[in-house]
Amino acid sequence: MKGHIGGARLREIAAARAARSGTLRVTVGGMEEVLHRVFPVLDHGFVRVVDYMGDDGAVVQAARVSYGRGTRHTRDDRALIRYLMRHAHTTPFEMCELKLHVKLPIFVARQWIRHRTASVNEYSGRYSVLDREFYVPDPSVLGVQDPRNRQGRGAALPPGKARRVVEMLRRDAAACYGHYERLIGAGAGTGASGAEYQLARELARINLHLNFYTQWYWKTDLHNLLRFLELRTAPGAQHEIAEYARVICGITEKWVPFTWEAFRDYRLDAVRLSRLEVAVVRRLLAGSDPREALQGLSGREIRELEYALGIDLSRFA
Amino acid sequence: MKGHIGGARLREIAAARAARSGTLRVTVGGMEEVLHRVFPVLDHGFVRVVDYMGDDGAVVQAARVSYGRGTRHTRDDRALIRYLMRHAHTTPFEMCELKLHVKLPIFVARQWIRHRTASVNEYSGRYSVLDREFYVPDPSVLGVQDPRNRQGRGAALPPGKARRVVEMLRRDAAACYGHYERLIGAGAGTGASGAEYQLARELARINLHLNFYTQWYWKTDLHNLLRFLELRTAPGAQHEIAEYARVICGITEKWVPFTWEAFRDYRLDAVRLSRLEVAVVRRLLAGSDPREALQGLSGREIRELEYALGIDLSRFA
Amino acid sequence: MKGHIGGARLREIAAARAARSGTLRVTVGGMEEVLHRVFPVLDHGFVRVVDYMGDDGAVVQAARVSYGRGTRHTRDDRALIRYLMRHAHTTPFEMCELKLHVKLPIFVARQWIRHRTASVNEYSGRYSVLDREFYVPDPSVLGVQDPRNRQGRGAALPPGKARRVVEMLRRDAAACYGHYERLIGAGAGTGASGAEYQLARELARINLHLNFYTQWYWKTDLHNLLRFLELRTAPGAQHEIAEYARVICGITEKWVPFTWEAFRDYRLDAVRLSRLEVAVVRRLLAGSDPREALQGLSGREIRELEYALGIDLSRFA
Amino acid sequence: MKGHIGGARLREIAAARAARSGTLRVTVGGMEEVLHRVFPVLDHGFVRVVDYMGDDGAVVQAARVSYGRGTRHTRDDRALIRYLMRHAHTTPFEMCELKLHVKLPIFVARQWIRHRTASVNEYSGRYSVLDREFYVPDPSVLGVQDPRNRQGRGAALPPGKARRVVEMLRRDAAACYGHYERLIGAGAGTGASGAEYQLARELARINLHLNFYTQWYWKTDLHNLLRFLELRTAPGAQHEIAEYARVICGITEKWVPFTWEAFRDYRLDAVRLSRLEVAVVRRLLAGSDPREALQGLSGREIRELEYALGIDLSRFA
Repeated sequence: MKGHIGGARLREIAAARAARSGTLRVTVGGMEEVLHRVFPVLDHGFVRVVDYMGDDGAVVQAARVSYGRGTRHTRDDRALIRYLMRHAHTTPFEMCELKLHVKLPIFVARQWIRHRTASVNEYSGRYSVLDREFYVPDPSVLGVQDPRNRQGRGAALPPGKARRVVEMLRRDAAACYGHYERLIGAGAGTGASGAEYQLARELARINLHLNFYTQWYWKTDLHNLLRFLELRTAPGAQHEIAEYARVICGITEKWVPFTWEAFRDYRLDAVRLSRLEVAVVRRLLAGSDPREALQGLSGREIRELEYALGIDLSRFA
Repeated sequence: MKGHIGGARLREIAAARAARSGTLRVTVGGMEEVLHRVFPVLDHGFVRVVDYMGDDGAVVQAARVSYGRGTRHTRDDRALIRYLMRHAHTTPFEMCELKLHVKLPIFVARQWIRHRTASVNEYSGRYSVLDREFYVPDPSVLGVQDPRNRQGRGAALPPGKARRVVEMLRRDAAACYGHYERLIGAGAGTGASGAEYQLARELARINLHLNFYTQWYWKTDLHNLLRFLELRTAPGAQHEIAEYARVICGITEKWVPFTWEAFRDYRLDAVRLSRLEVAVVRRLLAGSDPREALQGLSGREIRELEYALGIDLSRFA
Repeated sequence: MKGHIGGARLREIAAARAARSGTLRVTVGGMEEVLHRVFPVLDHGFVRVVDYMGDDGAVVQAARVSYGRGTRHTRDDRALIRYLMRHAHTTPFEMCELKLHVKLPIFVARQWIRHRTASVNEYSGRYSVLDREFYVPDPSVLGVQDPRNRQGRGAALPPGKARRVVEMLRRDAAACYGHYERLIGAGAGTGASGAEYQLARELARINLHLNFYTQWYWKTDLHNLLRFLELRTAPGAQHEIAEYARVICGITEKWVPFTWEAFRDYRLDAVRLSRLEVAVVRRLLAGSDPREALQGLSGREIRELEYALGIDLSRFA
Repeated sequence: MKGHIGGARLREIAAARAARSGTLRVTVGGMEEVLHRVFPVLDHGFVRVVDYMGDDGAVVQAARVSYGRGTRHTRDDRALIRYLMRHAHTTPFEMCELKLHVKLPIFVARQWIRHRTASVNEYSGRYSVLDREFYVPDPSVLGVQDPRNRQGRGAALPPGKARRVVEMLRRDAAACYGHYERLIGAGAGTGASGAEYQLARELARINLHLNFYTQWYWKTDLHNLLRFLELRTAPGAQHEIAEYARVICGITEKWVPFTWEAFRDYRLDAVRLSRLEVAVVRRLLAGSDPREALQGLSGREIRELEYALGIDLSRFA
């Protein structure tokens, strides 16, 4: 925790966790447990639940536009939520809301902000001085450029190279932060560190790297949260944002367990078969000759179908 | 209340109001008071707060991206909220969320839904049978077509005419609802009321008027709520939706009193002067000859300026 | 066409079709053909393309953030569009825009408007007098309430009943429109039709049914258009809005043929298998005993899987 | 232009400008002039119009939901547009759409992207290698931190200091870009420049500064464009993004001249007076004693009122 959040701030958080009050609103035991706690992510980042609205019952209540809690029987609620998820009736899931406080590298923030249906208040580098905190990947996650997937990373760098890359990233960020300090004149003057400039913060910050940490309040509804989690835990997502998504998956599971279960069954672990793939599966199930069954699919499509269904079709191709 | 909500539902609501639990989230005393209560609007409609997230402090907290509850001193919070409102820094106001259950005539719902940044789940006339409830205006609010403002209503109808209008609306709605019942076959059979048809609900409902009541769950953030309230309490708003807006104004004031005060001072009761109007005011304040000062404004613009500033310029025109 | 649009308006449309000009923008031959033409829908409605922006090449251009027209080779463009569609890279499809003029019954408009990511300007019943035009279903589409699917329609009504339903709908709408005319005082005075009231239009209109026609300008981007078409041509969509969607499908195919083809292969005709269904298909393909393979699926789920894959599993159940 | 765009790309752009076709859509002469042209901004950035939809007439057409081109008389159109702007009837302005290709520093992109109602496709640093282009401010715009406005910049740095700041920014960016090249292994090998790493691009890019250039396609409607321009040309906007906004202002004026004129009169050059300020102006105009008239306003509010109205109230304070 040390690297993620300072002592004074931990006291503020502790105070928030101590301030218990009564409410007539829906509460969720699992969320009260995690409220205000700091979940570390990467080397200095974190995710912290600041507030939430609604629960699984609120989804059901909205779907039924009913008067009471929306719950007749727990079993009915689960079934209705599964029905809604299965048939993409998404609006009832918009009735729950989550507010997070997140500390994250700027390059991660740039991917995250592309999810437009959300509210954001970010720490302002125009107004405030940024902390001396930047992301340096663990050597184990330093991959080479994937030769096939042009936007992915492949095999790990050899340890020696990885160590030197880490060194380079650390040195560059540290040196530029030192210059940033001189530009804004936050240092001790014209001593050993050289002259200082009182430059406007909004300009000085442009000398910082994309791996410096920023932080924000981020609020979104459950439907849009699930889309974020689906996209950012997918194989194509960059490792660093996926680390955040995985932590938020754990929080979401505590918050709305029925929704989470349905989301896994019908979205995360579901498979979409294209028109052509459906035809192939149909032919295979009908027992037609495998070689004929696969006609119309390219080699790449056959591999994707194998991956999707977890089967080996190579003997037929 | 009788005409607005049934007995069984009142019991469900009473149960919701009795279910108190502890939470680490921010709570607002004034909102806990109104939570789940039914505020009657028009002849059968209502507004009911189902849930809320955040308070004035949450606006401050987001603006500062702070760690604790966001409140240093009540006085600072108020000043910051006024600053945000004055300078149209709107994103921190998105950090609060309100969820309402509303019963409203369909023609009001059609205006309301134009506010797109909100989540809605509406009672489905495809799935369920609509109640025999329709809006009939009080005779006192029946105005003639405004001869100048083409989308407004002017002077009240004379009492006799108003009574006959009310009668006509009531009779037409009642008769068509009777037919609706026969179309869906909800009645007692082929007795006095005639044959019945078991027609699909999604078709039968097209025989209902725009003044029939529907209901929905509506959830939006504080920023978008204020825009709704600003637009729907403005002089040009239709009386019926303004009735809903006024009730929600009262709720908002209890929820976020500092925000509400700032909203009134800088938005509701503020005046926007156009480039030309600014020039006129400047000349008037500089003591230039009034006739010259008003040059460039049309008669209509002069009247609008008089109205905006609450002054009489007629002696100069 | 007669019932859909008046003569004076046809002349205006003809004028628009005659006004040809030169442009450096991307144009699409197929769209220029349909521009401003009136496609009839239902008994009085229509869809008319008013403007468009972009083509298949614009999707490619945005995906590549390229400088030129985005087209290297037609074959590459098609492949890239298929890749984008397959992997749900949706933002490039937002780069095309379509603007329609639509005349539609109010109950259809109420479903349509739920698609929030669009711009709408609707004919105002507060400002203008609504025409005497209402939707009366063709007897052939009058279905009874579906006994299983609570929001659908089932078998057709017998001809005699259907005729009487049509009569009832027609009579009610005509009678109420007559009253509407008296309320606004648009008629000839206090003659045979009775007294008139000069009631404000915004009030008089509440005496009209949900099947009266309104019209609007509707503008959305290609990505959101496809979601609209996917949802509104699905089996669960109400017949009437599906009629509009089908007409727009035809327009979209002319506009962006590669996108349309990919949309059909990967969305419209694709099948999503849940986690459980994937497991079943895997077991079936592996040749395991069918009875065991289907374990974990309910009877309903087995039927849905059969429907999705177009196979008969009943012998195993 | 040299620093902004390469020769091969200029040829692509020239080709786009040469490809003229006929259309039945609305065209705007002024926009055809600027279409595809590159407007330089800052040291390496640019704005380029890629496509547009609609004109002033399209705003009018949507407001009237009319059948033809929407234009009866130019004078009526102008008056209607001014009316819409004055009374904040914003939806007709959504009926026009603009698509830009923009090259801009990442810290500017981070402010820009906060405007959520827009479509964006950005050049991907995960997929492609970023160019060796970074923003270095002209010495004349290097201001010190504003002592009063905590997020602004104040007086210019003395020339000597400014030169040294520029040097520092340039040196840091160049050095880190050199390392970026080594990380991705784009250089000539393990010669003088040292070892290379084949690191995945998505990781290597985190060693770049916030002043490196990126580019994107950005598409938004006229209503949201005006909000962007209003906010980003306001006194509080950062100089660099304001440079882009000013170029787009010029384009917008060519595109929709009536809308632009109304926007200036009723938005850009308008003044919003708070409830208290209205009261003060009213008292001043009524000739009441100035000292009393200003009661209730703080010193700061008096200064803001003076600024807004361009008058000197100091003699009264």
